[in-house]
Amino acid sequence: MSVPGRMIKIHADDNVAIVVNAEGLSAGSHLADGALLVDSVPHAHKVALVDIPENGEILRYGEVIGYALQSIPRGSWVHEGLVRMPEAPPLEELPIATRRTPPLEPLTGFTFDGYRNDDGSVGTKNILGISTSVQCVAGVVNHLVERVRKELLPRFPNVDDVVALNHSYGCGVAINAPAAIIPIRTLQNITRNPNLGNEVMIVGLGCEKLDPFKLVPPGHVARSDGCSPVLTLQDAGLKGFNDMVAALMDVAEQHLVRLDQRRRQSCPASELVVGLQCGGSDALSGITANPAVGHAADLIVRAGGSVMFSEVTEVRDAIHLLTPRTIDQSVGQALVREMAWYDRYLQAGEADRSANTTPGNKQGGLANIVEKALGSVAKSGCSPIVDVIGPGERIRRKGLTFAATPASDFICGTLHLAAGMNLQVFTTGRGTPYGLAMAPVIKVATNSTLAQRWHDLIDLDAGSIATGEKSIAQVGEELFALILDVASGRKRVCADRLGLHNDLVLFNPAPIT
Amino acid sequence: MSVPGRMIKIHADDNVAIVVNAEGLSAGSHLADGALLVDSVPHAHKVALVDIPENGEILRYGEVIGYALQSIPRGSWVHEGLVRMPEAPPLEELPIATRRTPPLEPLTGFTFDGYRNDDGSVGTKNILGISTSVQCVAGVVNHLVERVRKELLPRFPNVDDVVALNHSYGCGVAINAPAAIIPIRTLQNITRNPNLGNEVMIVGLGCEKLDPFKLVPPGHVARSDGCSPVLTLQDAGLKGFNDMVAALMDVAEQHLVRLDQRRRQSCPASELVVGLQCGGSDALSGITANPAVGHAADLIVRAGGSVMFSEVTEVRDAIHLLTPRTIDQSVGQALVREMAWYDRYLQAGEADRSANTTPGNKQGGLANIVEKALGSVAKSGCSPIVDVIGPGERIRRKGLTFAATPASDFICGTLHLAAGMNLQVFTTGRGTPYGLAMAPVIKVATNSTLAQRWHDLIDLDAGSIATGEKSIAQVGEELFALILDVASGRKRVCADRLGLHNDLVLFNPAPIT
Repeated sequence: MSVPGRMIKIHADDNVAIVVNAEGLSAGSHLADGALLVDSVPHAHKVALVDIPENGEILRYGEVIGYALQSIPRGSWVHEGLVRMPEAPPLEELPIATRRTPPLEPLTGFTFDGYRNDDGSVGTKNILGISTSVQCVAGVVNHLVERVRKELLPRFPNVDDVVALNHSYGCGVAINAPAAIIPIRTLQNITRNPNLGNEVMIVGLGCEKLDPFKLVPPGHVARSDGCSPVLTLQDAGLKGFNDMVAALMDVAEQHLVRLDQRRRQSCPASELVVGLQCGGSDALSGITANPAVGHAADLIVRAGGSVMFSEVTEVRDAIHLLTPRTIDQSVGQALVREMAWYDRYLQAGEADRSANTTPGNKQGGLANIVEKALGSVAKSGCSPIVDVIGPGERIRRKGLTFAATPASDFICGTLHLAAGMNLQVFTTGRGTPYGLAMAPVIKVATNSTLAQRWHDLIDLDAGSIATGEKSIAQVGEELFALILDVASGRKRVCADRLGLHNDLVLFNPAPIT
Repeated sequence: MSVPGRMIKIHADDNVAIVVNAEGLSAGSHLADGALLVDSVPHAHKVALVDIPENGEILRYGEVIGYALQSIPRGSWVHEGLVRMPEAPPLEELPIATRRTPPLEPLTGFTFDGYRNDDGSVGTKNILGISTSVQCVAGVVNHLVERVRKELLPRFPNVDDVVALNHSYGCGVAINAPAAIIPIRTLQNITRNPNLGNEVMIVGLGCEKLDPFKLVPPGHVARSDGCSPVLTLQDAGLKGFNDMVAALMDVAEQHLVRLDQRRRQSCPASELVVGLQCGGSDALSGITANPAVGHAADLIVRAGGSVMFSEVTEVRDAIHLLTPRTIDQSVGQALVREMAWYDRYLQAGEADRSANTTPGNKQGGLANIVEKALGSVAKSGCSPIVDVIGPGERIRRKGLTFAATPASDFICGTLHLAAGMNLQVFTTGRGTPYGLAMAPVIKVATNSTLAQRWHDLIDLDAGSIATGEKSIAQVGEELFALILDVASGRKRVCADRLGLHNDLVLFNPAPIT
């Protein structure tokens, strides 16, 4: 695929290629066929390989990513100012479940050392989670977590961490509005995340709209030890702050005693629930990191595991490539329904999917959301899509699931945690210190410049694919091995080593009151 | 107003009274006229003073709070199940600026010791605020704040605190949607809060939608010392995490040097910008704490200061009592426009203002949002309404302003900070540990039971008004004195003493992408 001048053309039909050498290419450099570059072209940006007439199709990934706003001579820099964005693919009459390829060969023998839970799920960490029914109690929970970390945690060496699951929901919200189901089920399902070992504590206030008992994971209330998972600060028995904290510390200790008895055990790779995400993407995302992640995703699926890809506004323009991969009409229609829901949601707010691309995306060479989406879906590999879940819902099937979430990094991360993710893989071209307290996040750089500059923030460099040093499959296999190591606690991701964790941020399309 | 059996009737026309003794009243107790209580009535709930026929008006505050769903005999408990909620007052043809009362007598000679800023505003604290253009950087900012607090702050004894202004906005948002103006201006105006002394630091990522330089307060960029207020983590010069933190620590130190040179000086009470809020209300809120706050609000206005009351869904049903108090047509129309905007916003989400009341409100005796709103607006005292600002806007005038915010405690608090509030007064009947890191919050209990139980969380007990020990004016004057003490740093509020602070939570009615 590589051509002289360090450019990559993805698909045989493409009439643009991406400049992959770190410093860009100067005007006068040679194209593969010997023609000269007319403009200087920055790293990760596009070069016209042929003369493209005004209104002519601009092709990348073998797909139309736009139309030329003026004639673009061969060797020109095809910057965003020259590209008219196509309409989104219509959602009617998409081909559903039409791709009939033989199933990928199963992989056996891969394992990781995880914490097995009663419900059959497996944690990659052993965390005491302290959730809340309402933001009002956040100050108390933060104080509690600090004290637990200092005073209790050192006595329980098998517990990895104590994490405050604070959020902005719970009161001052239209809790009966139809869309309120999304933040509510998100909070309910987060308490069931496998990394919390069914030992989550819930701190309520007492007068809030969201009933704290609704956040209790199934099977938790009926504990034989009588330990209530919910403590309500307005309880008449609690005489002020010190009393509250004492009561909470007592409950926390009971949970820690049980969590501390848990040990990692060898589990098949089929117990992995891996979320895939990208953020701060550039035009290399779709060439290096995302295809490598797609390869690793296929390996996980072949090993019987679960993989989620997401980000509705970043799949919307590639939806015609995804519906054929769904396993049946019902899954295909669910995928279309999620797209349609989001189209309407954006329209109601007087926006559309073009609101997705960021200034950083554009500086990184992505002309528009079409080009971004085509690169984004590369993360999904080539497995069949076995299920579609709504935002905040729990994953239901092994294999590749589309989890319909916004593309916002921290919101997608929060919804993946609710879906039951025990590890996330995150690709980035521009760089972000993103991390999650509840699950390890492996950050993969699309380019070696970033990986080298952010040496202590990036876990894997996929930039070697652009230079031709490594193949997509090689980096994909490295990533798969790293996933097993991280899931086993043998390796720590950068974000965990540095303690860099983002807030839980809920997706609440319903009104605030 | 008090009658035997410890009940309070607010207005001469009322046909219900509120039981104010802590343990409620048993069936068989005597009413003022000697009649017997038919039911046992819980604390803060309503008793029918006369026979109310089916569909008859139920009157409290001299206003219709509902209609009897069945005939209610004298002496009955008028619980929410007996009350049909009235329609909201129509927004057309409201009387505007019709109340012509003589202005309240000016108060002179009241001062507090504050930190005077270049722009003329006055801080009640001297805080280094570290804001961000995007949630992505939250982990780095939290790490930074921890290090500043440990390593730098001890060397700068005149600086009260260092505060991370993390939030959920900045990327993954439809930044050009019309309603995006609300979160954007909120973040812009928060950096201008007087308690941050125009020394705010801004941490950006580099590829996010919200340009970090848009958050720089006016006058800040052009500093003669060349110290940029913005540091961007993706800057090519920053080689990884340790480099980032070192650069940030360096900038933080420069800000701390300047902040540390500031001293409190005597300022007239006219420099107070006090936000009023209630949360976890009960039926005593409108009898004790809120009227006392209203009295204090009038004192602040008489002293030339600025007061904001808020919470659209909690004034909507009392709007006909507020529009007459606006000073002119323009202010009156602005008030009506904010109500109409919120009506449409709730309707678009298939909700209405009745979504406001919480389970706690109802247990506390508030039958519906009409009764809650009539009690809520008591916080505004009787001063004329001189201005109306939209959510996230800065206050513009001395006197009483209506700041249109949701009623959500933490969102209203965040928007008050953006408006330029230097101190908040918060009334509560059910109790909340609510607090803000950027400004002191004085918490006033509506009842002595709460004030006594939460002895270390409540700053002032207005319950003595219900028992008849103190008058509304007495508690209002105590509160005014406490405001001056807290604004001067002579007294610390409970939330600050315990370090209990809520997150900044933005109001973003625009879509997520």
